[in-house]
This record gives sequence, C-alpha cells and structure tokens, in this order.
Amino acid sequence: MKVLILGGDGYLGWPTAMHFSRRGHEVAVVDNYLRRRLCQELDVTPLCDVPSLHQRSRLWRETSGDEIPVHVFDLCDWKPTAELFRDFQPDAVVHYAEQPSGPYSMIDQRAARLTIENNLVSTLNVAHAVRAHCPQCHVVKLGTMGEYGTPNVDIEEGWIEIEHKGRKDKFLFPRQAGSLYHTTKIMDTDLLWFYVRVWGLRVTDLMQGPVYGITTEENAEDPRLLPIFNYDAVFGTVLNRFAVQAVCGYPLTIYGKGGQIRGYLNIRDTLASVRLAVENPAAPGEHRIFNQFTETFSVQDLAERVERVGKAMGLDVRREAIANPRVEADEHYYNPVHRGLVELGLEPHLLTDDVVAGIVETVQRYRDRIDERLMLPTVQWR
Amino acid sequence: MKVLILGGDGYLGWPTAMHFSRRGHEVAVVDNYLRRRLCQELDVTPLCDVPSLHQRSRLWRETSGDEIPVHVFDLCDWKPTAELFRDFQPDAVVHYAEQPSGPYSMIDQRAARLTIENNLVSTLNVAHAVRAHCPQCHVVKLGTMGEYGTPNVDIEEGWIEIEHKGRKDKFLFPRQAGSLYHTTKIMDTDLLWFYVRVWGLRVTDLMQGPVYGITTEENAEDPRLLPIFNYDAVFGTVLNRFAVQAVCGYPLTIYGKGGQIRGYLNIRDTLASVRLAVENPAAPGEHRIFNQFTETFSVQDLAERVERVGKAMGLDVRREAIANPRVEADEHYYNPVHRGLVELGLEPHLLTDDVVAGIVETVQRYRDRIDERLMLPTVQWR
Repeated sequence: MKVLILGGDGYLGWPTAMHFSRRGHEVAVVDNYLRRRLCQELDVTPLCDVPSLHQRSRLWRETSGDEIPVHVFDLCDWKPTAELFRDFQPDAVVHYAEQPSGPYSMIDQRAARLTIENNLVSTLNVAHAVRAHCPQCHVVKLGTMGEYGTPNVDIEEGWIEIEHKGRKDKFLFPRQAGSLYHTTKIMDTDLLWFYVRVWGLRVTDLMQGPVYGITTEENAEDPRLLPIFNYDAVFGTVLNRFAVQAVCGYPLTIYGKGGQIRGYLNIRDTLASVRLAVENPAAPGEHRIFNQFTETFSVQDLAERVERVGKAMGLDVRREAIANPRVEADEHYYNPVHRGLVELGLEPHLLTDDVVAGIVETVQRYRDRIDERLMLPTVQWR
Repeated sequence: MKVLILGGDGYLGWPTAMHFSRRGHEVAVVDNYLRRRLCQELDVTPLCDVPSLHQRSRLWRETSGDEIPVHVFDLCDWKPTAELFRDFQPDAVVHYAEQPSGPYSMIDQRAARLTIENNLVSTLNVAHAVRAHCPQCHVVKLGTMGEYGTPNVDIEEGWIEIEHKGRKDKFLFPRQAGSLYHTTKIMDTDLLWFYVRVWGLRVTDLMQGPVYGITTEENAEDPRLLPIFNYDAVFGTVLNRFAVQAVCGYPLTIYGKGGQIRGYLNIRDTLASVRLAVENPAAPGEHRIFNQFTETFSVQDLAERVERVGKAMGLDVRREAIANPRVEADEHYYNPVHRGLVELGLEPHLLTDDVVAGIVETVQRYRDRIDERLMLPTVQWR
C-alpha cells in the first residue's frame, strides 16, 4: 500500500516510516521540523543526535535498499499539501503532524495559539486534501487517551450509547482533557467526525496512551536510526524520563501523589497498532476509534518498577515527590476498554523488568549527553 | 457595569451595545469588519446601508447622549486584545466576534480555515486576556443550539449526568454539529470549559437558536441605527430570508422536506438574554450554559406563517421546495430544554402574526434594495 506519514521526523513518525517500509509498503514522509525548532526555542536537547530526515532516508536506503522520499514543508500550507496528496495518491495517511506536548501548550498565549493552529489546520488540510484528491484514502489519525480525561465511569472505545428519559442515541464518548494540547485533540476528533458524516471519509482515530521505549526492529542494529527521544519535562513522556533520571542518578520526579493512572504502550506496539489499522482500513463513512495502549499503570507503579530494576543494575535510584505543576486528579478511578487492536491481531510487548532494563541500557550509552537541568517542570498550569 | 462587546459591528453586536448603553452600563465595542469584508468577497449586500461603527457611535451619542467607544482591530491579534482588556477592565465581555455562517464555512479549504482560526484564536485570546488582566471578568460567549445537532434524545441545558455500568459522572451534553462553523462552536465550548477548570474563569455559554427580526427598542426611532441584516443564503437566517422573499415576490425557498426543527428567538430576546446573563454572572470556576431560544418551529411552520401573514398583507407569497444543499435530517426528533434564562427573568417576545407583519413591514421600506440573485443556495455541503 502507499502510505503517507505526516510528522515523519518525530519520536513515532520516523520509526513508523521504517516499519512500513520494511514490510513492503511504499512510504513517503512529510515534516516541517517543528519539534526540533521548539526544542531549540526551549533549549532542550534530545538524548541522542538525530540526523535530518534526508540523511535518515539515505541511511535507510543503505541499510534496507528501500526508498523513503522526504518532503519538508508545513502541512498548514494548503498548496504543497494538496499537491502531495494529488501526486502521491496515498491509500492511507498516518497523521502524527501535531504539536504533542501538554506542557508546551500551557506556556503562554503564543504557544497555545501555535498548538491550536498547527493541530487543527493540519487536520483540516488532511481532510480537504483527501476529499479533493484521493477520497478513498484512509485517514489514520493519532489521538490520545488524554481526550477522555479521568471520568468516574468506564471509558469505552470512542463511542457510547446513552439512554436518556426513555430514548436512546449513540455519541462520541464524553471527553474533557487535562491540557490545552489534549483539548486540541478533542477538537481534531470532532473535526474529522464532521467530515466523515458529511463527505464519507474513512477515518481511524487511535486514542494513544503515553509511549515508552526507543528501540524497534528497524533501528536495533544502527543507532543512527534511533528516533528523537526527549526526556525533558516538556516533551518527554514519563517512563522515558524516569529511565534517564535513573541513569544519571537524579531522583525520579513524581508529580503530586503519583496516583495518576494512564494506559501505556511500548513504541513497538505503536508501530504494530498503526500498521494493523492501515492494513485493515475503516469503511467509507466510518469513524473507527481504538484505544491504543496495552496496560495501565499509576505514576508510582512506574517509578517503583524503574527503581527496582535500576537498583538491580547497580544504579543509584531514588523517588521524589514534587509539587504537581498540572491541574489533574492524582487519585482517581480509571477503567478504559482496549479491545479493538487486539482483535485486529496486536500482540502486546508488556512492560517486563527486562523491557525496563533494555531502555535503561540504551540510555546508558548516552549517559554523557544527559542534561540534569531538564528534569524539573518549567511550566505551571496555574 | 463595564461591558466589552466583541464583534460589535454585527447583526447582534451593535444592537447589544446600544441595549447595554441605554440601561446605564459602560460599553465599548471591538470589531475588525470581517463580516463586511466577507459580504464584499461574496458580493452579497445587506438589506439596508449600515454606517461604520465610528459613525454609529456618533449617531448614538447624538440620540442618547451616551458614549460607546469603538476599537477597530482583529481580536486574533494578541497585543491590542491584551491591551484593551488591561485598560478597559471589563466586568463582563460578550463574545460575538466569530465567523457565524454555516454555508460560508463549507465553501472551500480557505473559508474553513478562516472560520477555525478566527473563531478559536479569538476565543483563546479572550481566555488569556481575562486571565492576565481581569481574572474576575465574566465571559459571556455566544454558542449555538447547532452544537447539539438533532439527537434522538432530549437536549438538556449544556450538561448531562450519565450512568454507565453502575457508575455516574456529569459531562458536557454530547454535541455533533451540521456545519464546519457549528463544529468550531463545539470547539469553542471545549476550549473555554478547559480554562474554566484550570484557571477558574467565570463563563456563561449561550447556546442560541436562529434569531429573527430587525427592530429593537433602541433603533425603532432611527433607521440609521438598524443592524446589518443579511437575507442571502450564506449569512441570512431563515425567517429573515422568508420575510424578504415574501416582500419581493420570490418563492419561500424550503430546503428539502422542511421538517428541520430548530429553536428560534426574537432579536429583542437575544438582547434581554445577554443582559440577564451579564447582570447575573456565573461564579468563578463555573461554566454555565443556557439554551437561548423561546420557541421551536419547523422550516415548514415558518414558511406557512410567513405565507399566511404575507397574503393577508396583499403580497404574492408562494412556497417552493428546493434540493437541500446541506447534509442534515429534514425529519427528526427535537426536544430541547430552555429554562435557565426564563428563571433569570426573560419574558419572551413570541412569534405572533403581528411580529411577522412587523418584520415584513420594515423590509418593505427597503424593497428596492432586495437582490433576487441572493435567494438560492450557492454552497453545497457535498
């Protein structure tokens, strides 16, 4: 299949591109290097140096023999976006091209505006480009479990039937998010669901939990193909940050009570989930939603696990509670369904101690590059 | 109270400004004339010539003795927005500054993008400006009944308690709208609700139905103070368009079966509702939602009424079904609650035959300006 990866430079975008390429799909990537620019602005450096997309594409050709054409432009620009969809004629488009950080979106008005405009206009342009140039193309959009927040009821996979005063109807599951970024993802979902109803687009929305890990089948042999891996308090996800803190002897920073429960998944399972969604497309006029995670943990669960594994590896690991910079419940009910991707064939890589040790070992190779200034939260929600 | 009216040039903005001014409030208005520019772009002309905001402000001073300072800038520009909130220190801000047309938002990618950016960034800027410069200011945002769409269950006032698998929680009422514009209003609601939760803003969201009428207490004596009144298929609301069609002998254009039911209200009741909301503010951290309409009608109900009244006035009125340019149910269940504003003291001006006749009579004074080219829909949803 012809698969267009939007946001192909990111933590998940580049691994996804290689994953599809290795499995015989024809892949092209688009990115405008927004993530790299925002990291420069905030003076935060990823764990390892990452070659440019053009360089990585050449490395991939040397390694695999396969081509991944690279397009560097802003998907908020309508003209190049429309032209690429017209010329490439993708069977599926995987949309990662969003500003993905909750803390970033809470810095100030400018960061909030960038997040809203980038995330909504890129999604709008995808819908319009598909409609104009390849109406059968399947849109696979990365959403987030954060859209649901932490309601006091079980979280279904995207949809819920509501009975009210003796009548029934089916609706998008209620959503209320914990950051401006996560709120833009709610808006994305509403935007695509509107165009699904009106134009009959085919959409799969993957409500993803925080991802951990760095190594995939495609980069295990060549560290130059590792993804952008942030461990700072703005762009890093929690388990990745804990692994880096364990390696450099910085206390694991737990926000508040650490009772925040989320659904997590291994980066390998992100790639498999996205591939399963692409290879089993939604029908025309279908807005299919999967909850994309494999296990739930509290922040304390994760910290305890990293502490135990780290100590067994001879590292000096401690946990430290710090004031929560976010506005969120740090003790709450959480019971989300996650059946759809397993039914499509997902075989989870669960978070064993070996998996934690593997992440820690990879991070240890970059010990000298760890910047301890990046560990504490710099953005306050209030 | 000090009341800042955003979108003060519009169909409802200017009448609202005069209404507050006459009742002793200190009023200022902001507008960037977007609506006038879009009308020029599409070559649609309002029913009567409307002086500029500065001219109207001078006319109002001559008439009433009261000042309404005018600010002409784009509320998507952060700097002048923040400065105005800082300097004026409003007790309440009434946010009408949105691209308000469903058909306009469905023209093409450019119109859709303008609608998303204008509506979301202006709302974002209001939230940030209030937070930064007047955190006790009450934000009164005009939403739309169209956010709810036409679900098969009764529509509550904004919120619903859901019981699911033996547990309960309270959520925003499910929403799925019929145009890209209406979808941006869903997003607006989510955006403000996020900042209410995080920052404790005070918000009232007025889910308004289609408004009809042109005359208010403040403009009845001076036609130079009439609002921008569009009757075209892009910016006109249905009853206003029917009144104009009745006057010029054009058939009343009914989309599809005409069984679309909506909640309507007289422009006078919009002004009273907004004033009641402002004079009875939401508490800090409260996102209060009222359904702002007074009666429900189907499109056929309205057409029959205009036909009956028009014929009694000696006009040549016919009804004509045309293909529905929209994607919407033209027969459906509809039962929305509307209690909150009545409890605050709203005394509805219902749609009597006299009210219809009054609108028709006002339109007749502008008979020569009616442009029959503007009657048929120019924008197709599909």
